Amino acid sequence: MMNPIKELFNIEYPIIQGGMVWCSGWKLASAVSNAGGLGLIGAGSMHPGVLREHIQKCRLATANPFGVNVPLLYPGIENIMDIIAEEGVKIVFTSAGNPAVWTPFLKERGIKVAHVIANKKFAEKAQQSGVDAIVAEGFEAGGHNGREETTTFCLLPEICDAVSIPVIAAGGIGSGRAMLAAFALGADGVQIGSLFAASLESSAHINFKNAIINAEEGDTKLSLKSLVPVRLLKNEFYQQVAKAEAEGANRSELMKLLGRGRAKKGMFEGDLKEGELEIGQIASAVHQIRPAAAILQDIWQEFLSEKERISNLSV
Amino acid sequence: MMNPIKELFNIEYPIIQGGMVWCSGWKLASAVSNAGGLGLIGAGSMHPGVLREHIQKCRLATANPFGVNVPLLYPGIENIMDIIAEEGVKIVFTSAGNPAVWTPFLKERGIKVAHVIANKKFAEKAQQSGVDAIVAEGFEAGGHNGREETTTFCLLPEICDAVSIPVIAAGGIGSGRAMLAAFALGADGVQIGSLFAASLESSAHINFKNAIINAEEGDTKLSLKSLVPVRLLKNEFYQQVAKAEAEGANRSELMKLLGRGRAKKGMFEGDLKEGELEIGQIASAVHQIRPAAAILQDIWQEFLSEKERISNLSV
Repeated sequence: MMNPIKELFNIEYPIIQGGMVWCSGWKLASAVSNAGGLGLIGAGSMHPGVLREHIQKCRLATANPFGVNVPLLYPGIENIMDIIAEEGVKIVFTSAGNPAVWTPFLKERGIKVAHVIANKKFAEKAQQSGVDAIVAEGFEAGGHNGREETTTFCLLPEICDAVSIPVIAAGGIGSGRAMLAAFALGADGVQIGSLFAASLESSAHINFKNAIINAEEGDTKLSLKSLVPVRLLKNEFYQQVAKAEAEGANRSELMKLLGRGRAKKGMFEGDLKEGELEIGQIASAVHQIRPAAAILQDIWQEFLSEKERISNLSV
Repeated sequence: MMNPIKELFNIEYPIIQGGMVWCSGWKLASAVSNAGGLGLIGAGSMHPGVLREHIQKCRLATANPFGVNVPLLYPGIENIMDIIAEEGVKIVFTSAGNPAVWTPFLKERGIKVAHVIANKKFAEKAQQSGVDAIVAEGFEAGGHNGREETTTFCLLPEICDAVSIPVIAAGGIGSGRAMLAAFALGADGVQIGSLFAASLESSAHINFKNAIINAEEGDTKLSLKSLVPVRLLKNEFYQQVAKAEAEGANRSELMKLLGRGRAKKGMFEGDLKEGELEIGQIASAVHQIRPAAAILQDIWQEFLSEKERISNLSV
C-alpha cells in the first residue's frame, strides 16, 4: 500500500515544506519540489500580484507538484483564490479560518485541499467540508497557533482517531527521528517549517536566518495569547509584549503595541530588535543554513535508518 | 542487547508509573510493580511517617522492584532521605531541585537514581552528578513543569543527544503509540502519570478521577508561571488564577490566592471547585477508571503492535 500523502500529491517523499510568511517564495517552494517533497508558496505575506508572479516563477522552476498556503482570514481572499484558479494551481493548503467557505470552490476546480488545524473540532469540520487531508499542528509550531496549546504528542493521536482522511503532522518536526515519531503517532506525512525557514532558498532576511540557527532551548515562546497566539523568537519586541501582558495590558493596548508590518520588519527586513520573528520551538535544533534539498535528504535518510533501528529494537 | 531501563531497574517492561502527589501510594505503586512495570511512591505529598508506612506496605504487597519519587525542595528532605535509606529502598526518582546535593548520598547506599529534568542544562548537570537515568519531561506533563515550555517532541531528541545515560520520556504518554513515538525520538523507557492517576488503585479522590476521565482537549493549562509553573485542570480555582494573572497580579498576590493545601483539597479530598487539580494534557485521552495492570498491558500490547506496523510500513 502506497503512502496516502505521496499518492494524494504525487510526490516522492511525504514531506511538505510549510508555506510560511516572508520565507516561502517560489525559490524555496521549487527547491523543495525539485528535491521530491512538496513545496508551498506562502500567500500570507504576498499582495495578489506578487503571489501571481511567484506561482508563475515556481512553475518555470520545477516540473514537479507544488502548492500555495492561504490563510483564510487574508484580506481580499477572493482575489487570492481567483489568482490560484486562474494560474491553475493544483494544491492548496488553507489555514486560519473556516474550511467550509472555500473548500467547495477549490474542489470544483480539481484542486487538492489540505487544511491546517490545532484541535479535534476543526479537524472534523475540515473533513466534513471535503478537504483531502488535515495538517495537525502542535503547540511547538512557529507562527500562529491554537488556543488549546495541545502539543504534537497529544494532538496527533486525537486527530488521527477523529478523521478518516490522511493526516500530516506539524510542529516540532526537525529530523528523521521526529518524522518517524509522527508516523508512530498515526501521521501519514510531515510538514516542516523552521528548518526550511533557515534554508538557503528561504526568502527570510539573513539576520533572521542567523537568529534561527543561533536559537537555543527556551528561546521561543507562545505570545500575544489574548489576540491571536503566535510563537515568537524572544527578542526586544517579544520582551515589550511580555512586559505589557504581565502588567495586564488589554487587547487594544496589545494591538497598538503590535502595530502593523512587524512580521515583515523582522523576518524580511532583518530588524531583529523591533520585528516580529515567528519560528518554531525546534529552531533550537537548527544549526546551519543549508540548501533545502540537503535538509530534505537528511530527514528522509534519518527517517529510514531510524525506522530500521526501531524495527530491530529488542524490548 | 537488553533495554537499558529494564536492565537498570530489573523490570519486565520499560514503563514507569510517575510518583504523583496525592495519587501514588503503596496500592498504586505495588499494582504497577506486580504488573511488571516500575511503581513509584510519591513522597511529595507525604509526611515522613506516612512515607515509611507506604514503603513498608509496598514491600509486603509486591516482591518486584519499586521506588520512591522525592521532590528535592521538600521541607525536611533530610528526614525523607534517612527513611529511604533505613527502609532499604532500592530506587529513587528525584525532581524539582539540584541533583548534585543528594545523588552521592543515595549512590553510596547502592540506590539507583533517576532525576527528572525539563531542559538540557539540568540533564547534563544530572549526568555529572552521577544519576543512572534521566526523566525528560515535556510541557504537556501534569503538575510542576519547566519554564522553557519545551514539548516532549522537541525535548527528547535534545536530551538523548546531550547525555549518554538512559533517558525516560514523560509528558503526553498515554498509549502504546505514544510510547513508540518516544522510542523513535531516542527514549529507552516511558514514565506515565495521568493514566495511572485515574487508575483504580490511585489514591486520588473519586471526584478527581471522574474529572480526569471527563476532561477534553484544551481542558488543562500551564498556570501560575510567575511562581512555579504547574499544569492544572481548568476548574474554578484555575479561573481565579487566570483572572488574577490577566489583571497583572504579582507573585505575592498569587501566593496569597494559592494559599496552602490546595492540591490536597482538590486531588485527595475531591473539592473540584476550590482545589488544585494537577494533571497532564493527555487526560483528554483517558476515558475510564481501570486497574493499573490493565492500563499497563494495553500500552505494552499496543506498543508491540505499533512497532510491528511501523516496521512493515511502506513509505
